Amino acid sequence: MSEQRKLKFGALIHGVGGSISGWRHPDIQADASVSLEFYKEQAQKAEEGKFDLLFIADGLFINEKSIPHFLNRFEPLTILSALAAFTSRIGLVGTVSTSYSEPFTVARQFASLDHISQGRGGWNLVTTPLESTALNYNKTIEEHPDHAKRYRIASEYIQVTKGLWDSWEDDAFTRDKETGEFFDPSKMHQLKHKGEFFSVQGPLNIARSKQGRPVVFQAGSSEAGKNFAAKEADAIFTGQPTLEDAKIFYQDVKNRAIAFGRNPDEIVILPGIAPIIGATEEEAEHKYQELANLVSIDKALDYLGRYFDHHDFSQYELDAPFPDLGDIGKNSFRSTTDRIKQEAKEKQLTLRQVALKETTPRTSFIGTPEKVAHLIQQWFDEKGADGFIFSSSVPNALSDFVDYVIPILQKRGIYRTEYEAETLRGNLGLPFPENRYAK
Amino acid sequence: MSEQRKLKFGALIHGVGGSISGWRHPDIQADASVSLEFYKEQAQKAEEGKFDLLFIADGLFINEKSIPHFLNRFEPLTILSALAAFTSRIGLVGTVSTSYSEPFTVARQFASLDHISQGRGGWNLVTTPLESTALNYNKTIEEHPDHAKRYRIASEYIQVTKGLWDSWEDDAFTRDKETGEFFDPSKMHQLKHKGEFFSVQGPLNIARSKQGRPVVFQAGSSEAGKNFAAKEADAIFTGQPTLEDAKIFYQDVKNRAIAFGRNPDEIVILPGIAPIIGATEEEAEHKYQELANLVSIDKALDYLGRYFDHHDFSQYELDAPFPDLGDIGKNSFRSTTDRIKQEAKEKQLTLRQVALKETTPRTSFIGTPEKVAHLIQQWFDEKGADGFIFSSSVPNALSDFVDYVIPILQKRGIYRTEYEAETLRGNLGLPFPENRYAK
Repeated sequence: MSEQRKLKFGALIHGVGGSISGWRHPDIQADASVSLEFYKEQAQKAEEGKFDLLFIADGLFINEKSIPHFLNRFEPLTILSALAAFTSRIGLVGTVSTSYSEPFTVARQFASLDHISQGRGGWNLVTTPLESTALNYNKTIEEHPDHAKRYRIASEYIQVTKGLWDSWEDDAFTRDKETGEFFDPSKMHQLKHKGEFFSVQGPLNIARSKQGRPVVFQAGSSEAGKNFAAKEADAIFTGQPTLEDAKIFYQDVKNRAIAFGRNPDEIVILPGIAPIIGATEEEAEHKYQELANLVSIDKALDYLGRYFDHHDFSQYELDAPFPDLGDIGKNSFRSTTDRIKQEAKEKQLTLRQVALKETTPRTSFIGTPEKVAHLIQQWFDEKGADGFIFSSSVPNALSDFVDYVIPILQKRGIYRTEYEAETLRGNLGLPFPENRYAK
Repeated sequence: MSEQRKLKFGALIHGVGGSISGWRHPDIQADASVSLEFYKEQAQKAEEGKFDLLFIADGLFINEKSIPHFLNRFEPLTILSALAAFTSRIGLVGTVSTSYSEPFTVARQFASLDHISQGRGGWNLVTTPLESTALNYNKTIEEHPDHAKRYRIASEYIQVTKGLWDSWEDDAFTRDKETGEFFDPSKMHQLKHKGEFFSVQGPLNIARSKQGRPVVFQAGSSEAGKNFAAKEADAIFTGQPTLEDAKIFYQDVKNRAIAFGRNPDEIVILPGIAPIIGATEEEAEHKYQELANLVSIDKALDYLGRYFDHHDFSQYELDAPFPDLGDIGKNSFRSTTDRIKQEAKEKQLTLRQVALKETTPRTSFIGTPEKVAHLIQQWFDEKGADGFIFSSSVPNALSDFVDYVIPILQKRGIYRTEYEAETLRGNLGLPFPENRYAK
């Protein structure tokens, strides 16, 4: 199906942004993270650009060192439900953790979003690396499940959720006013799940949606994360610093999907990018520098600490080599902390260099619309990506992208000019999942 | 403040309705419970009628005997978030159980709804009477908390939730682009709650809203329920069959509020009513009979069974006196089962009579607009109610009420012609709650 292969795009809507200090820019709306108007405008701009989906990230623990966006932001399911009302075609994908929630409630809320949006719902399943989260959920830090256990929980959780989503066959609700039969009892199913972590009888109190069930995203990049995604997910949101890394990741996940007996085209791989567009190279570069200049080193150290379970980096010499941290960060954002440690070692970076690099990551997607479009096509053609999750780092990043880069990709014939389908699943090119009980 | 006292109205939006067979009516949309269009129209009609709020009921367990609306319906927080986008002034109140959820998540989702709607969010706190619910939440029926324990849980839960809602003082987010101070750290507070059932550190990752915090509703009528409401709730949704009952309940709750040191005007008592309006008495009566005629006795027995933990009533003689059920239903919908048992005894009703009466309750709010308006004013003036939660039993019930009854109440000067405030709390006449940490 290579001749039909088309780029996919998601837009991460993220309030004041993923950086520590981006909110300080004069052209950034400082309360964007709790502004419905901001979310609505971004959503409608992404839909104008025929994006496949909106993506809402999440977290369940903050302290005084958290980045601004994390401190005060909308909860994913509620904001996505509101955005469903302001849009008509774009998918709505939200992050919810399997380590700190109940499958019956989560299956139901996503199914409800999927009905509200007429088949545009999606769930980004995360396992919550941050162990302090336990403190908000009646547990001690020691009780936060370790990486392996989190994935055992997630594996069982997704079985329960998918099972609950099949509680009703597609034609179960007959609603025959003459006979008084509202539904066909033979098409209602109890899951009766009993496992290591969950025991859920069912049925779910909501039917399947227009796309069968919500699309499942996964965002982990560890071994367990990749296996989980290859087995269970419809799409992956991943972070890949270079095209080489992206190609290796892409091939790896597709191969794992094949090993699980799946069609590799049915798992969509979407690296995150944060393009900075300028009319000239210099203008784009200037925008990047403006952003980097807003960051103070103190805030940068705090930010870095968050990946390492709020480790205090202010105790080290700033211009000495990046410290040897031993096992710190091992049970947290594993793939990120491994990468940071490894890069620091390979490139012999100082703590200051690492901190500034992590707070204002410099990707290659900086430049003119033609250059960025070219890179996107290269990643796509060389199978580093099936598409991308776009995130904004500078003011007007999304509108610049939609206005200047999207038309180039459309002209090159690798991106849609109109939505192909009414559902998220349809637009992503994924097949309608049959109900497990259907004969 | 009697001279300023004004009626309040909520609209229970409930899909195909609370009856077993109402959906069979030719003029009822049979898929209303999962129709966004239906919910949107009802919400906008209620807002046209200057209603204070929309109310979404809920439940977490179904089986093949559940009423149609329960089988396949939207989840409250998601549908309310979508309705926030279609409305601008009406409050948005949703039901969530304290027995099967996490305070951090629930506090956060309601706070998010409250921000999305600019201060119109509300939570109807229930403790979940139906013990089978345990089966969907990793528990056995025996592990479903009993009535007393459910209220102990709820009492602690509401402390946690209110505490989390105060995590940030109202002026905590300074967002000073010059200094780089996004918030004032002295105005961020950890709750550090450790109790019998919950341990929650905080802070919550969302600020207080325009109305301070979501309005808290409570719907139980048992002793524990009334005490809980009198102590913690801003409003009560209650079911009272007669004005005499309503007056006793009203005075009882207001007295309890006073005993807890509260201003009794700051707890709003809203009995549920399901008016049936006709141009004449006969037309209204005809509408009631049409509804009653749609019910079969088999379905009526199933419906009755639900209140008694899915007790099988088909084992009894239909025209013999209502059976002696002993303790059955004691740990479930306690106030309802007590009332049913007592009425059956007092009025010497047969099982058939009880079942039909319960499935198509006959209230006095049936008749011409003038008659219904008169009754409403009587309940209001005689302090049986501060207002009402309206629910629809027949087609077009809400639009009939808004078009024909509301104007009479407005003319009499006991109901608003325009919203007084922008927030739900403001329209209900409730004061803005100060943050507990504010000096």
